[in-house]
Amino acid sequence: MRMEHHKVLTVKILNTPGLLGQLGVRIGEAGGLIGDIKVLRFGKDYITRDISVLVKDQNQLKDLLALIQTVEGVELQAVKDRVFDRHQAGKIRTTSTVSVDSPEDLRDIYTPGVARVCWAIHDEPELAREYTTIHSSVAIVTNGTAVLGLGDIGPVAGMPVMEGKAVLLDKLVGLSGVPILVDSHDPQVVIETVVAIAPTFGAINLEDIRSPECFIIEEELQRRLPIPVMHDDQHGTAVVVLAGLLNACRYVEMDLHDAVVGQIGLGAAGTGIASILSAYGVKALLGMDVQPDAVERFERLGGGGATYETVMAESDIIVATTGMPGLIKPADIRPGQVVLALTNPVPEIEPDEALAAGARFAADGKSVNNVLGFPGLFKGVLMARAPIITSAMKVAAAQAIASLAEEGELVPAPLNLEVHRAVTGAVLLAASEDQALDISDILV
Amino acid sequence: MRMEHHKVLTVKILNTPGLLGQLGVRIGEAGGLIGDIKVLRFGKDYITRDISVLVKDQNQLKDLLALIQTVEGVELQAVKDRVFDRHQAGKIRTTSTVSVDSPEDLRDIYTPGVARVCWAIHDEPELAREYTTIHSSVAIVTNGTAVLGLGDIGPVAGMPVMEGKAVLLDKLVGLSGVPILVDSHDPQVVIETVVAIAPTFGAINLEDIRSPECFIIEEELQRRLPIPVMHDDQHGTAVVVLAGLLNACRYVEMDLHDAVVGQIGLGAAGTGIASILSAYGVKALLGMDVQPDAVERFERLGGGGATYETVMAESDIIVATTGMPGLIKPADIRPGQVVLALTNPVPEIEPDEALAAGARFAADGKSVNNVLGFPGLFKGVLMARAPIITSAMKVAAAQAIASLAEEGELVPAPLNLEVHRAVTGAVLLAASEDQALDISDILV
Repeated sequence: MRMEHHKVLTVKILNTPGLLGQLGVRIGEAGGLIGDIKVLRFGKDYITRDISVLVKDQNQLKDLLALIQTVEGVELQAVKDRVFDRHQAGKIRTTSTVSVDSPEDLRDIYTPGVARVCWAIHDEPELAREYTTIHSSVAIVTNGTAVLGLGDIGPVAGMPVMEGKAVLLDKLVGLSGVPILVDSHDPQVVIETVVAIAPTFGAINLEDIRSPECFIIEEELQRRLPIPVMHDDQHGTAVVVLAGLLNACRYVEMDLHDAVVGQIGLGAAGTGIASILSAYGVKALLGMDVQPDAVERFERLGGGGATYETVMAESDIIVATTGMPGLIKPADIRPGQVVLALTNPVPEIEPDEALAAGARFAADGKSVNNVLGFPGLFKGVLMARAPIITSAMKVAAAQAIASLAEEGELVPAPLNLEVHRAVTGAVLLAASEDQALDISDILV
Repeated sequence: MRMEHHKVLTVKILNTPGLLGQLGVRIGEAGGLIGDIKVLRFGKDYITRDISVLVKDQNQLKDLLALIQTVEGVELQAVKDRVFDRHQAGKIRTTSTVSVDSPEDLRDIYTPGVARVCWAIHDEPELAREYTTIHSSVAIVTNGTAVLGLGDIGPVAGMPVMEGKAVLLDKLVGLSGVPILVDSHDPQVVIETVVAIAPTFGAINLEDIRSPECFIIEEELQRRLPIPVMHDDQHGTAVVVLAGLLNACRYVEMDLHDAVVGQIGLGAAGTGIASILSAYGVKALLGMDVQPDAVERFERLGGGGATYETVMAESDIIVATTGMPGLIKPADIRPGQVVLALTNPVPEIEPDEALAAGARFAADGKSVNNVLGFPGLFKGVLMARAPIITSAMKVAAAQAIASLAEEGELVPAPLNLEVHRAVTGAVLLAASEDQALDISDILV
């Protein structure tokens, strides 16, 4: 797969106007895309800067570095890899929220003091909510069978993704994410393991587990556990896709309820999308996948299985989640369609190609960042003390996300804390309106 | 069981010399023990202070509060429970060690950047050490069957202890402790669960699991996993007890190697103690327990089973870990004995009673805080990249702890960071001297 390289070049540049510009031109000639530029040191004659550069591969980097050396007054001092630098020693840590500075502190937070808290929870289990971190902790569980677009690389190699999710839970909604790597391909082992350790957590985020095991695992876990279980690759993604579609439809003045939505690819993401679209009330869902069991699953969700050609020909909206770059040819696009080609990093059809082929609106996976969904979904459902994440919560989350996008954009910027508060609030409200949940005594 | 209550009284006291003293006298009359006194506000006429008071129970507190009201110029404003206050919302949190302030940051620590780190670990698994938190994380695993002296109160009620251990790992040696509550009494379920999630962690701390299941679980996990597994109730405690015995023997000029050590109680702690004493080279170990399988285990470690009377009569040193307060009567003490009666919070025999009965040295469980052991043991073994915690490491840790005690004390203060660094160093050194471990390439 294509993987971009972010390098940071430390360069000492003669303090002459225009020299940084010249350097920028050379970097551009070599195909490098400049990101942040940061001054490290103002010298008398020289300025030392870190210049972030995005390159396609090692060869391009080599050419770029050679080209830089030709600029007079510029000295390359170091080349660092920004991504690897930022992963040094991992990205998370369990930290204490209490101080332990004196023997008295120690006696309070550990033996003998802690015994009274244990005993109180034993007598009244609800107190665990007040005196432990259980209900603000989310297990981020993977067996590493479908990590990003990399496939079955194993749980340990998937750890940087799990830590990344924990970072986002911390920074965006203040929850504790706890990566759990399960060393098994057997869905039953994953299920029994998560059931056994579930009392540790307030919710379970299943992550990067391949299809169809992910469906079996999610369904059985949610059936057996009294806490919310969500496979983010299905439902977190689906929430953000629905948000994007709500805005796309608004821009092209199409009513999503009445549109024919065609799905190309019915794996984890495709199934999650079908599920939320069905819950939202989309009346006509067409879909195709090479796996017969995927199509059956889709039909149980209310969709209709069809050929690739039929889906492309009959749909007002195309949502592609196949993992197959370039699958959709411009000739397959029906003029007037809304096209979301979501495979990362290279979509089924590039948005500009789709537009050139007559699409009214087109976007790729980069436009619907799943970071927008899961933090607020988990925060909201934990605050609501609801035992599951319902369809109504997911639709409410999508609407909250959609409403905060800037005009012309599908969704808002993913680091906007306002959005995560809005999602949290929408989920909480949806939970309170759900008669079946009966959370009235919690929300007082 | 006896549980102490730490209360914090917020009192507004007229600014008159001697009034705080009068208040202290009243609190003492009611049987309250004063801890920290902290000024909250200096007013013109009044000073508001928080006074920490240790009381035995609610009745004593009631009497104490009534007595305080009789002091003129003192106004009680609030009574807080310090222990419960400090446990509010739990004691730990997963926090990010990287900043996520810009879209570039997000692209580095999450998709797409993170994919390169995942791929690199997939190609070279050793890189997980460098780019994830796995090897600085310790799972703190319990099934809640033997929490402190409280017994089988279940894993959720045990959570405050597990969080406490995570707090100490963070504060004392900078490791990430991750509580894992396993919802099962079946040792095989605990084993399979921990094996399944083991790739997430650098080491496994088994905690508060009852005997004899704890032995089966520890042994099979260490056999099956390539990372260190330690049941702290056995070995962490044993390390600190050996440290205490080394100093006790020094004070009474006894050679521990040649002493007859008698153990009353051969549960988890007793077995761990027998194991380390045997490894240290104690030649004569006597022991008794009401459980025949406990005695058999003791004999496999090189000890000799005996009656209570024989152990008490023939031993130079008595180590009691029975969980039975007051078991040892003064008449049972042989003059000249060293007596460690370790059951918490009330020992088998109070040290002053033992001394009055002729013991040369006596101490209780409060004198050998297990906080001294586990943090440095785990830090050292993780730094050494050793797959197990060896007896040599435990003995080295005990010697390091013993060497830092103030003259006359059994062990040093548990929050002294110097001690934890010394334990870490001693474990690391022991690992490097262990030919079988072959960690030479790691220590360069």
